[in-house]
Amino acid sequence: MTSTSFDPKNLEAFISSCRAKYETMLATAVEIPTVSMDPDHRADIDRGADFACEILKDAGASAEKIATRGNPVIVGSFSSDPSRPTVNIYNHMDVQPADEADGWTSPPFVFKKEGDKYLGRGSTDDKGPALAALFAAKYAHEVGIPVNIRFVWEMEEEIGSTNFDEFLGKHASRMKANSILVSDTIWIARGKPAIPYGLRGLQGALLRLETGTKDVHSGTTGGVARNPVGELAEVIGKIYDARTGKVKIPGFYKDVRKLSKVELDSFTKSGYDIRRFQRAHELKKTRKLTNKEAVQRIWSMPTFEVHGIAGGYQGPGLKTIVPGRAEAKVSMRLVPDMKPKKMLGLLSSFVRRINPDVKVISEHAADPFLGEFTGPYAEAASEAMKFGFRATPAFIREGGTIGAVLSMQKAWKCPVVLMGLSLPEHGYHAINENFDWGQAAGGIKAFVKYFDSISRIHGKG
Amino acid sequence: MTSTSFDPKNLEAFISSCRAKYETMLATAVEIPTVSMDPDHRADIDRGADFACEILKDAGASAEKIATRGNPVIVGSFSSDPSRPTVNIYNHMDVQPADEADGWTSPPFVFKKEGDKYLGRGSTDDKGPALAALFAAKYAHEVGIPVNIRFVWEMEEEIGSTNFDEFLGKHASRMKANSILVSDTIWIARGKPAIPYGLRGLQGALLRLETGTKDVHSGTTGGVARNPVGELAEVIGKIYDARTGKVKIPGFYKDVRKLSKVELDSFTKSGYDIRRFQRAHELKKTRKLTNKEAVQRIWSMPTFEVHGIAGGYQGPGLKTIVPGRAEAKVSMRLVPDMKPKKMLGLLSSFVRRINPDVKVISEHAADPFLGEFTGPYAEAASEAMKFGFRATPAFIREGGTIGAVLSMQKAWKCPVVLMGLSLPEHGYHAINENFDWGQAAGGIKAFVKYFDSISRIHGKG
Repeated sequence: MTSTSFDPKNLEAFISSCRAKYETMLATAVEIPTVSMDPDHRADIDRGADFACEILKDAGASAEKIATRGNPVIVGSFSSDPSRPTVNIYNHMDVQPADEADGWTSPPFVFKKEGDKYLGRGSTDDKGPALAALFAAKYAHEVGIPVNIRFVWEMEEEIGSTNFDEFLGKHASRMKANSILVSDTIWIARGKPAIPYGLRGLQGALLRLETGTKDVHSGTTGGVARNPVGELAEVIGKIYDARTGKVKIPGFYKDVRKLSKVELDSFTKSGYDIRRFQRAHELKKTRKLTNKEAVQRIWSMPTFEVHGIAGGYQGPGLKTIVPGRAEAKVSMRLVPDMKPKKMLGLLSSFVRRINPDVKVISEHAADPFLGEFTGPYAEAASEAMKFGFRATPAFIREGGTIGAVLSMQKAWKCPVVLMGLSLPEHGYHAINENFDWGQAAGGIKAFVKYFDSISRIHGKG
Repeated sequence: MTSTSFDPKNLEAFISSCRAKYETMLATAVEIPTVSMDPDHRADIDRGADFACEILKDAGASAEKIATRGNPVIVGSFSSDPSRPTVNIYNHMDVQPADEADGWTSPPFVFKKEGDKYLGRGSTDDKGPALAALFAAKYAHEVGIPVNIRFVWEMEEEIGSTNFDEFLGKHASRMKANSILVSDTIWIARGKPAIPYGLRGLQGALLRLETGTKDVHSGTTGGVARNPVGELAEVIGKIYDARTGKVKIPGFYKDVRKLSKVELDSFTKSGYDIRRFQRAHELKKTRKLTNKEAVQRIWSMPTFEVHGIAGGYQGPGLKTIVPGRAEAKVSMRLVPDMKPKKMLGLLSSFVRRINPDVKVISEHAADPFLGEFTGPYAEAASEAMKFGFRATPAFIREGGTIGAVLSMQKAWKCPVVLMGLSLPEHGYHAINENFDWGQAAGGIKAFVKYFDSISRIHGKG
């Protein structure tokens, strides 16, 4: 362990003493259903933003609710001493939708504590990690670690950060930083921390086909009426081989940057195990892949995915209709050097060739991100994880997408470090989402250590 | 016109005088949501059965509610004079589900009268036609047409008449008849009546694939996790070419009986027009077919159809998940001499070959039906339609399925005549289902004439 400018024992005591408050705050945060995807939750977004300001102020920071054309961004600062380095910490306070009927064992927007486990939508993605960072910053501020800490809490992450670039365009210049810290990623497994230096990008799309204005009787019309679900199934089957995952759009893989040997080594040594991954995500089946193939697939290869086909009959049993319309909800995860716009173009023209009546509607998009896995910030992050969790983190990439990361890198032109606290079994975007005190407590510890380390990088610079 | 043993003017007066009562009865019938597919409507089925008994008694018939393992069958008789011929009239009193949110302009289970038009679920399928037959029988009984008329009202037609064979097995022997009349089919167009002498059969199935126990994050797992919607799309794409409708299951068309020249001539002369058909069913697109091809497709060719794919995300926008499970709801419409069981076998083994993890679950099934389009009953029906509607009916087949028809033909071993009153724009199984007084009034007239004619067939026999 490197020496620290704070007393580790004192930090441990602080962490123990703040647990009750951490849980109360997380409970309130979870119980405000800040679902950015659903316009019906607009008022909850506002309540969530106000609560975010409240807890920033309560921790001793300034707090500002900055309006955008969409949802607000909350900015809070602990100090702004120009002689100190500044770290901007990004988290998001919006959440995925959640329907209890999908199999939640308790209501998704009611916080539930089961021993060390915290259940509820948003507990791990991303309210729990955000609060861990906040408590760490409060401690760092109180013990005088010479670093300015600024929080940037977005409320549109789950809908592709639509207005975040607008926010940065208007406000980034008065929020300069020496580095950016993001805590919204997932470990390999409990006890196996990961520091991702890359993120996949995304291009979402809706494939919409309307062949009638209503559902009709499949006896009376079957044979003559076109079937939009059947035709979309054909389109999807031509776009990709769902069994292997191979995408058949011409040129799809052309811009995929080859993984370096160093990166591949780091991936394979990360401790990733496909069988454990399968259990953690409660998958009954996975594609047939070795561990080495699997990590490359998730961290450095693009995908095509169909999230659902709306339209037609979804209820119990069978209703013998020919649907009037259908919509396939699809997306492509992208890796360097793929560009969302170009990939959307390839998808659109391929679909047009298969079935010219299918409309391709662009949904949210984000460029892939590639940061550094060497240098003082990566080293500081690695040391901090070891300090917080007594385990050496692996430098990997992350399969998910955080659109804001690339935007911030462009706006503030400084290193971005991704120190997530979530575990695969925490259920990102899934039912029974949860977080736990072990990850929160270790996270607070790691973040304090990280703040301490980066305060010195500046000193050396 | 042939001579009649009743006074046509008196009949016209009867029809006019009973309109208000017809509408009140239809209103009550429509407002009892006898949805057989949904167990939540079990009490409504019972209420519907009681109401059916009530109106039979009110018309002067006997009424009996006969229990089965499923929903009851209602049987009513106007007379049972062994010197007279007996006609068993089949209708069904259960209805398709209806969700106002699908685009109904008024609540589906609230009867709405707009001039001559009657709106509501079940108005045309099959409550309106059933009541027309009841009023005709009441009249025939009152004026002394020498025929015994028995009603057999099923309440499981929309779920494949699951327990109708059980009912027939126990009770058919005490309900013998010389002919069967069914009123549950659709004309070519208003002014173009049809008497179908054939029905397509059906084999429904659920194609179920479970690759996880819940939906997971498509970034975190995408590339490794299998996608059940994608894999089912592939299966469907291999089963049939949705654009043309051609089914690719080996042996699928092997048992299709060739249409005779007489039948094909009758089809093409029926007045069917694909553009009018398209408008009536509010289709934006149809498959590219001539009128001659279209009638063969619907009336004498089998289909594969996908009614919807459940599982995954169906809401607005995009939710970037990999679904844990998906279920394609499919069916095959069958024509003579295809057998449901054999076709299910072909489908199952084909699906198993494409994707062994997909479970094929059998849903309701019915054999195709082929009756007579010549002979005294067919002639009587044709004359009756001319009498009721001043238009010559076409002998065609029907694309839909009424499983009970074949069962009754087997049980009572006598001719089955299908005299439907519904129009394409009445919206069988669709939103804004409706019926109208013109079809009801003409129907009553036609049925009275038919009863009169068949009372003489017996006389000659």
